[in-house]
Amino acid sequence: MVSQEQRESAFLWLLEHLKKGQVAVPIIAKEFTAEDWAFVLEGLPKDLRFELWKTLSDDKMSPVLATMRDDSREQLLSLLSNQNIEDVALASSTEDLVEILDVLPNRVAKGLIKKLSAQESDLIEEALNYSDEQLGRYVNHDLYTVNKSVSVESLLEALKADVLPAYTDSILVVDDTDHYLGQVDINQLFTSAPDTDLIQLAEFSDRVLTADMELFQASEAVKSSGRSMLPVITKDGRLLGRFSVKDAIDVYQEYYETQLSHMGRVSDEDLFAPVFTSSRRRAVWLGINLITAFVASMVIGIFDEVVAEVVALAVLMPIVASMGGITGSQTLTLTIRGLATGQLATSNLRALGNKEVLVAFSNGLVWALVVSAITSMWFDNPWLSAIIAVALIINMLIAAISGICIPVLLDKMGVDPAIAGSVILTTVTDVVGFFVFLGSASLLLV
Amino acid sequence: MVSQEQRESAFLWLLEHLKKGQVAVPIIAKEFTAEDWAFVLEGLPKDLRFELWKTLSDDKMSPVLATMRDDSREQLLSLLSNQNIEDVALASSTEDLVEILDVLPNRVAKGLIKKLSAQESDLIEEALNYSDEQLGRYVNHDLYTVNKSVSVESLLEALKADVLPAYTDSILVVDDTDHYLGQVDINQLFTSAPDTDLIQLAEFSDRVLTADMELFQASEAVKSSGRSMLPVITKDGRLLGRFSVKDAIDVYQEYYETQLSHMGRVSDEDLFAPVFTSSRRRAVWLGINLITAFVASMVIGIFDEVVAEVVALAVLMPIVASMGGITGSQTLTLTIRGLATGQLATSNLRALGNKEVLVAFSNGLVWALVVSAITSMWFDNPWLSAIIAVALIINMLIAAISGICIPVLLDKMGVDPAIAGSVILTTVTDVVGFFVFLGSASLLLV
Repeated sequence: MVSQEQRESAFLWLLEHLKKGQVAVPIIAKEFTAEDWAFVLEGLPKDLRFELWKTLSDDKMSPVLATMRDDSREQLLSLLSNQNIEDVALASSTEDLVEILDVLPNRVAKGLIKKLSAQESDLIEEALNYSDEQLGRYVNHDLYTVNKSVSVESLLEALKADVLPAYTDSILVVDDTDHYLGQVDINQLFTSAPDTDLIQLAEFSDRVLTADMELFQASEAVKSSGRSMLPVITKDGRLLGRFSVKDAIDVYQEYYETQLSHMGRVSDEDLFAPVFTSSRRRAVWLGINLITAFVASMVIGIFDEVVAEVVALAVLMPIVASMGGITGSQTLTLTIRGLATGQLATSNLRALGNKEVLVAFSNGLVWALVVSAITSMWFDNPWLSAIIAVALIINMLIAAISGICIPVLLDKMGVDPAIAGSVILTTVTDVVGFFVFLGSASLLLV
Repeated sequence: MVSQEQRESAFLWLLEHLKKGQVAVPIIAKEFTAEDWAFVLEGLPKDLRFELWKTLSDDKMSPVLATMRDDSREQLLSLLSNQNIEDVALASSTEDLVEILDVLPNRVAKGLIKKLSAQESDLIEEALNYSDEQLGRYVNHDLYTVNKSVSVESLLEALKADVLPAYTDSILVVDDTDHYLGQVDINQLFTSAPDTDLIQLAEFSDRVLTADMELFQASEAVKSSGRSMLPVITKDGRLLGRFSVKDAIDVYQEYYETQLSHMGRVSDEDLFAPVFTSSRRRAVWLGINLITAFVASMVIGIFDEVVAEVVALAVLMPIVASMGGITGSQTLTLTIRGLATGQLATSNLRALGNKEVLVAFSNGLVWALVVSAITSMWFDNPWLSAIIAVALIINMLIAAISGICIPVLLDKMGVDPAIAGSVILTTVTDVVGFFVFLGSASLLLV
């Protein structure tokens, strides 16, 4: 294992050398895990990335690829010949191979599966039966199982030669047809009489995951179980594999990073993705934004006469819109989190609504006073100051209500509120802000 | 253990009853862990929260409090009498107590520490010597250690009575003064001769954390170690405790949720925080936003004459600003992630900059064409179409450059770019957008 600092300094050293065209690998890289390599490769511009990749030993390649982000992995694979990909894939563990197959073109993936051993292609086919949000697809097959008829004594004897895989805190007991019967804590191996059969110790608790479970739910279950791993079974009770706390960490990290990317309007992305790939993906967000921006423009267009007459309106209108935008975003963020954790349901939605409206109203009052005071100093027009104060309060109230209603409705429609929520919200706060501010101005100022 | 669905349905059931004024607890709540209770309590409006809290048994109270979010915990503690708090605190484990003390008023906390046993108050004082970002503060003291002179045989004998704490995959070996000597894999207990002394098996690897390490770094280290836990030692080599993968999950979750909150402009917050607390915290973000909005307004104010003459400028100017805002946010999100992971350093910053500018330029070209086409259909003014196209491209380019420079500079100044980055960026894209668009209009259109 390499420490965080060692890894980072090795990374900087590598960058310096690669930039000068020298493909030299620091000595410490010998101790790099797949995670370390993935870290370093993802941090390299794409041409240097490939140079360094070629220095990897064959046995490292597939775990490194499997550990990388989807898009970095895809970019690297696109540079390899089919023969290369095949070599890497054939040397992979089943779990790593599933990750690699995910980003390969369908045709290549199918060709690959045909070349695997019967046992391995069975495992792969079984994994691919589950969707990429289901546990069954990512299950770890590296687990320690024993048959129900084995005694503690013979297990202890066997353990003199076998090595327990990482994150093993229980032995999984199965019958002759690999159906899961229960688990025995490692602890119990020390406390039980040698002639006890494992089946007598095995506990079939509810600490079991099913392969069709959603990945995120499975992670929550492992986290709150207090166990280093939980067994994963199929619908008919066959032991498929296991899911560890380490796997849960990976799921959480990917989940949260995707959320952060959505909020930043960028699809989860390789730092050094090809320009064309990046441009195309981001264009989607820009296009959506353009539509909402034009909607706001049309609202301003309705009131172009009053704006031409009182140009202070054009100067001040972004304030009304943006204060609403921030208020809405604050409520939206809380609501999305509440929906994601499950702590927000129909029965406590109204309580949240009441609180959020009160918060928006009290902040609306305070900031309306401030804004109208500045406005009257700047433009010396009491009507204008009154109009902006009222528009600000109304927009902030509607923003708070929208901050709850929009994600709740999206969630009911089956759309992830983290993706679409804030775009819709901004449209609402822009439209309402411009409409109320310019509308009341056209009634009162002309 | 209760499944996710059971927990959620128990939560809904509770909400229904509490709303009717009935404090009834579902039977399944008997199996609730501290995490389950924290989940349920955080999801309740604050008056109902307190009602349910009072039904908890004494031994549950402190682990539940320790598991809750900081602000929910603080809100609940504010409703308890000092005597109540003292009872809860005195029944707490050291780890839970540190969490609880963190949100207590200083005076109350000091009074409490005095009433603890000498051994416990020593542990607490030691924990509080570390900052709330350092590992030493949150170290888990529930660990299995043995003296170096113990043999495998006597350890196995002892394990017949002792229970290994959760997430234990190695035995920690210490000398007579509790200095850390190394760890022995559980695996090795099975494979070694009974008369071997543990010290012979103990490996003093680099799989050790130091108490002054940053919490997030420690989590990264545990994650990549492949171990369920790592020992934590003080500067002088004394074994202080351990840090498990489960602890790492908690750190990651808190870290990412804080990031998401910052992006949503809301300080990490209780769903049902008191209105006054919420308003005050959010007012800070709103105030900062108001300053930036006024800066943008002032830029518009400079060009009020041309806006009064060509009102289409007022209609179109939000488009230029918001397209720049989105472009900048996309680059900013990637840069912040790269800085946080350490994958972005001085040496590859330029490569990222080149790529981001190219991406912004190609998207700028595409969307400038679209926007100017729509503009010429709408306003039939070729100069206006040309001006908006150029302004859009310039703003998007500067947005991309700012999206890199702003977080990098903030990071160098020791400010978390996730907090301040996007506020500053929006100010830049607004100011540049309005200035370039209105400025060139005032040169060319009047």
